[in-house]
Amino acid sequence: MKNFERKIYLEDKPRSAAKEELLEAFQQTPKTEYIPAADTLGRITAEPIFARISMPHYHASAMDGIAVVAESTYSAHEQNPLLLKNGEQFRYVDTGNAIPSPFNAVIMIENVHVVDEKTIEIIEPATPWQHIRPIGEDIVQEEMLFPQGHTIRPADIGVLLASRQTKIPVVKKPVVTIIPTGNELVPADAALASGQIIEFNGTVFANFIKEWGGEGRLHPIVKDDPEKIKQALSQAANDSDIVVINAGSSAGSKDYTVHIIGELGSVFTHGVATRPGKPVILGKIHDKIVIGVPGYPVSAYFALEWFVKPLICKYLQIPEPKRQTLSVKLGRRIVSTMGAEDFVRMSIGYVNGQYMANPLTRNAGVTMSFVRADGLLVVPPNEIGLEQGTVVEVELLRPLEEIKNAIVFCGSHDLTIDLLSAQLKSLRTDMKIVSSHVGSMAGLMAIRKGEAHVAGVHLLDPETKQYNISYVKKVLAGQDVVLCPFLKRKQGWIVPKGNPLCITNVIDIAEKNADFVNRQKGAGTRILFDLLLDKVGLSSEQISGYDREMFSHLAVAAEVKGGTNAVGLGIFPAAKAMELDFFPVADEEYDLVMTRSFYESENGRFLLELIHSEVFKQQVKKIGGYVVVENTEPKLLTRAER
Amino acid sequence: MKNFERKIYLEDKPRSAAKEELLEAFQQTPKTEYIPAADTLGRITAEPIFARISMPHYHASAMDGIAVVAESTYSAHEQNPLLLKNGEQFRYVDTGNAIPSPFNAVIMIENVHVVDEKTIEIIEPATPWQHIRPIGEDIVQEEMLFPQGHTIRPADIGVLLASRQTKIPVVKKPVVTIIPTGNELVPADAALASGQIIEFNGTVFANFIKEWGGEGRLHPIVKDDPEKIKQALSQAANDSDIVVINAGSSAGSKDYTVHIIGELGSVFTHGVATRPGKPVILGKIHDKIVIGVPGYPVSAYFALEWFVKPLICKYLQIPEPKRQTLSVKLGRRIVSTMGAEDFVRMSIGYVNGQYMANPLTRNAGVTMSFVRADGLLVVPPNEIGLEQGTVVEVELLRPLEEIKNAIVFCGSHDLTIDLLSAQLKSLRTDMKIVSSHVGSMAGLMAIRKGEAHVAGVHLLDPETKQYNISYVKKVLAGQDVVLCPFLKRKQGWIVPKGNPLCITNVIDIAEKNADFVNRQKGAGTRILFDLLLDKVGLSSEQISGYDREMFSHLAVAAEVKGGTNAVGLGIFPAAKAMELDFFPVADEEYDLVMTRSFYESENGRFLLELIHSEVFKQQVKKIGGYVVVENTEPKLLTRAER
Repeated sequence: MKNFERKIYLEDKPRSAAKEELLEAFQQTPKTEYIPAADTLGRITAEPIFARISMPHYHASAMDGIAVVAESTYSAHEQNPLLLKNGEQFRYVDTGNAIPSPFNAVIMIENVHVVDEKTIEIIEPATPWQHIRPIGEDIVQEEMLFPQGHTIRPADIGVLLASRQTKIPVVKKPVVTIIPTGNELVPADAALASGQIIEFNGTVFANFIKEWGGEGRLHPIVKDDPEKIKQALSQAANDSDIVVINAGSSAGSKDYTVHIIGELGSVFTHGVATRPGKPVILGKIHDKIVIGVPGYPVSAYFALEWFVKPLICKYLQIPEPKRQTLSVKLGRRIVSTMGAEDFVRMSIGYVNGQYMANPLTRNAGVTMSFVRADGLLVVPPNEIGLEQGTVVEVELLRPLEEIKNAIVFCGSHDLTIDLLSAQLKSLRTDMKIVSSHVGSMAGLMAIRKGEAHVAGVHLLDPETKQYNISYVKKVLAGQDVVLCPFLKRKQGWIVPKGNPLCITNVIDIAEKNADFVNRQKGAGTRILFDLLLDKVGLSSEQISGYDREMFSHLAVAAEVKGGTNAVGLGIFPAAKAMELDFFPVADEEYDLVMTRSFYESENGRFLLELIHSEVFKQQVKKIGGYVVVENTEPKLLTRAER
Repeated sequence: MKNFERKIYLEDKPRSAAKEELLEAFQQTPKTEYIPAADTLGRITAEPIFARISMPHYHASAMDGIAVVAESTYSAHEQNPLLLKNGEQFRYVDTGNAIPSPFNAVIMIENVHVVDEKTIEIIEPATPWQHIRPIGEDIVQEEMLFPQGHTIRPADIGVLLASRQTKIPVVKKPVVTIIPTGNELVPADAALASGQIIEFNGTVFANFIKEWGGEGRLHPIVKDDPEKIKQALSQAANDSDIVVINAGSSAGSKDYTVHIIGELGSVFTHGVATRPGKPVILGKIHDKIVIGVPGYPVSAYFALEWFVKPLICKYLQIPEPKRQTLSVKLGRRIVSTMGAEDFVRMSIGYVNGQYMANPLTRNAGVTMSFVRADGLLVVPPNEIGLEQGTVVEVELLRPLEEIKNAIVFCGSHDLTIDLLSAQLKSLRTDMKIVSSHVGSMAGLMAIRKGEAHVAGVHLLDPETKQYNISYVKKVLAGQDVVLCPFLKRKQGWIVPKGNPLCITNVIDIAEKNADFVNRQKGAGTRILFDLLLDKVGLSSEQISGYDREMFSHLAVAAEVKGGTNAVGLGIFPAAKAMELDFFPVADEEYDLVMTRSFYESENGRFLLELIHSEVFKQQVKKIGGYVVVENTEPKLLTRAER
């Protein structure tokens, strides 16, 4: 497609302006379909709905008793009981029965004295229409039950049926065709070669659209061939109300999309002033809106919410649902791009009675940052950043209750934490563990800043040769914390199966020029490695890959698996999980540090019980490479003592 | 079933205690089913889910550029450019491409100078692993993606697919069989005779259960025959996880249910201390929970929420979702039963910057009270009532936004208000009119108490012979309000087709002893009727049915339709809608009274524009019986003036 001149940069149109234009340009008239009332849950009425009959639709008895003509009972009195003949002067009725004419009142069975088969006696007159449900007491024929644009709930369906509305006019779900493009894409079930990527964005889009009330139709993957893309686009523009095309929306040499949409129709926006999500295309092909969204998952999800959701709501004639918001305190400074709206995924923890929030990775390629996010911070274009400690409003991505009850675990990564988390969930549906793998030192810092309840640490003190205690005293001086002995675990060299380079110690790594896979600064494992280097008088410069930082044992193992010359330092279960070889280096103490308030809280007590339960200990032993510390006496370290 | 001794009264067990016992008794082990990841939206994981592969699963280029061996580029410098041969010393790579070994770094295409087909030149060294996405940057193989009990959202599905989890273990939806019983019940589509009721509760139940994550199965209607009920119950207990049987749960002579459950299994609760919803049965038949819920729809819906929803949540292993709450001010006193929890359906309006709430009818037979409710007030057992003006917490039954944007219309009922409401919704999806038909005087009172934005009034002053103005001045003295002339409409006698009693005036009604259908006190129409009586010197005692009160013109017409001797006073469109005869009595002025703040608000202006629009005027003319007031100059009545 050399005839397409390469577009070097994108617009920076404000999102609101782009959205306004888009909504203006979207002129699909909603279609109506008639469906059985019983199937209308969550659907939206296309017209006002009026009652076709009343409920009750007849004069109904409100009591078990007898129906009488009120006027004929006026003489009844204790001194002058009145006898009534069955069939002529009264009829027996139960609650809900119709009142036969000429009767116009009901006397409760309790006030009726039965004389014989055909005769009863009353000693009190009835007033006209007493104990009779008037016609339409609940629903009156011809009254408007719902206006158009009403979202139908379970109880609404009862009213529809009761008033004889059996076929309901609802707005047809707008059809959104999703076109995934890219030579590297393969379907979820296909075999996967290096360099290939599983196509999952399309399926995610379809589910977002379903949630918003539309019908997402996933088109098969289209190769990066302008002709094929052209075909797919014009076909989709004919068959659907909205078209979404994924990837190729940027300004690279192979980004044909914008040119093709321009050729087939018109492009009115290419690039919005947001991070992530900037490379968005908004255009039209034969009066159908076509939206080009970026390939990076997180950018794509945002673009979809900004531009597809509003269209669906406009089509359905419902207001755009808003997310619940929450005021949170920032645990870290947030830098933002001037002139662009920043959408920062945040993790939120309820610690020491306040909501603390921290940004997750800003990398738009990391879908887990979206999955793990509790909330969304939108930094306006004119802000260059927000200082640590600032209180800001975030949109919630989870129910508040869920965030409030979560145990925030921070610090060194260990696989037993996942076990603990699963165990907890199985016993307490309202609780969960949210863990972020930031390393031992960062874990202690999180406790200090009141961002976490629990930190997992394994920090060896070169002087005392003791684990953890000295670091806790140093970093958390002036705070009441509890140090809970947790596990002993094996650290060692993780190498490819068969150990091709025959790595047995740190000197081998240097001499054989292996590709070392390191951990981030402040990680206990990195500190251990530095000590090992130190012991033999090696410097980090002599280790190739020393600057290559991973954030968990599994990540190290995954990298080692990726290269034949690779070696990493990590725990046994990680090596085992990835089927790699492992050579023990040290037995280390992996302990849990908790704030005193959490330790003493109901959740804290519950967590400790779990840790000390036989079930959990057995599961840990099963993994291998661990020794569960048996006499685990938690150590309370109070401010006062120091 | 004479062998069943009649049970006279029910227990008054606290709801919380009954619920606890029930949850304790419910021991169904959740079943697991494996479904394609793409279909898991909203489903709940039955086990922790771990990543089966990493994403990326290979070393991927993060840039368009060339892959090189970093160590071989160290000599590159501006003064000493380095030439590299394609294929041997470098390879072209695009973003996302795999990095072929032995290469371990990527140089951006922008920093590459192409010499010829096979040669390029660089003037800067590369550092190892630069611009290469590490394996597992997003998802690391073997990491726990979700614990069990996680509700799957659209983005979660992407992670499942990307990590090669294609079949997901989710909790099977619990099967809840719903058994409707009653001789009076007929299916929604069947012909309807007097005394018969459409079965709709079952369908409503099924939809509630669907919303809560269960699978509701609606059993055909069962007659009030103990043998048939017995069959249905034991069959259902075999086939389902939970059984719900509707009606027959009380203590009447025909309420077999409790005895049958007792016979087939055990009953542990019969009657809870709630209003409504008291007659509930909680029991067990061959280890399956059976719940008997009352026949009155509103009682039934509550019982279902209290006792079926928690079982479904327990089965699904998720916490019970809580409703959003809101502080509101009570517009009226609320009386409550001592010793019982009262569940009061409330209408809520956002007027003059505060949320005012009023109770809707407490009648458990009125489903519309549940449909119309904005919120739910739970009055604890130890309260005997709540004073007007008290601020209380209510559970919201609608999104807060919807309540906040609603225009609260109060006062006399007129069919054009429905028109207006439909018109408004079609133009502004975020606005709606909530109207309650309380009569003209009550409408003015609502304005005075700050409970409504707009009141519809038609009040004739016998002295001045003028409509509305004098009443507004009297009732709303000391307030700034706006009186907007709206319509002239025909009031007249509504009589059965052919006018069998030949009613032409109020004297006929008395002399021919017709069944008069009156309106509630304070309704403009009733005031008009009283004036008519007064004119001819008749007293209300001489009118049979004078005390028979309806709350709208349609309700009057519906009643008239129900009896051949009936007559009512009302507006022409009501008679027309019900195909009744109509004899005009008076042309009256139906005006709108608004608070000044509403009149001047954006919503207020929008409403007036609508009223004055040609479209609306045409629609009103089409109904007939109206004259649209043309020179409608709203009259501002300020406190100062009086």
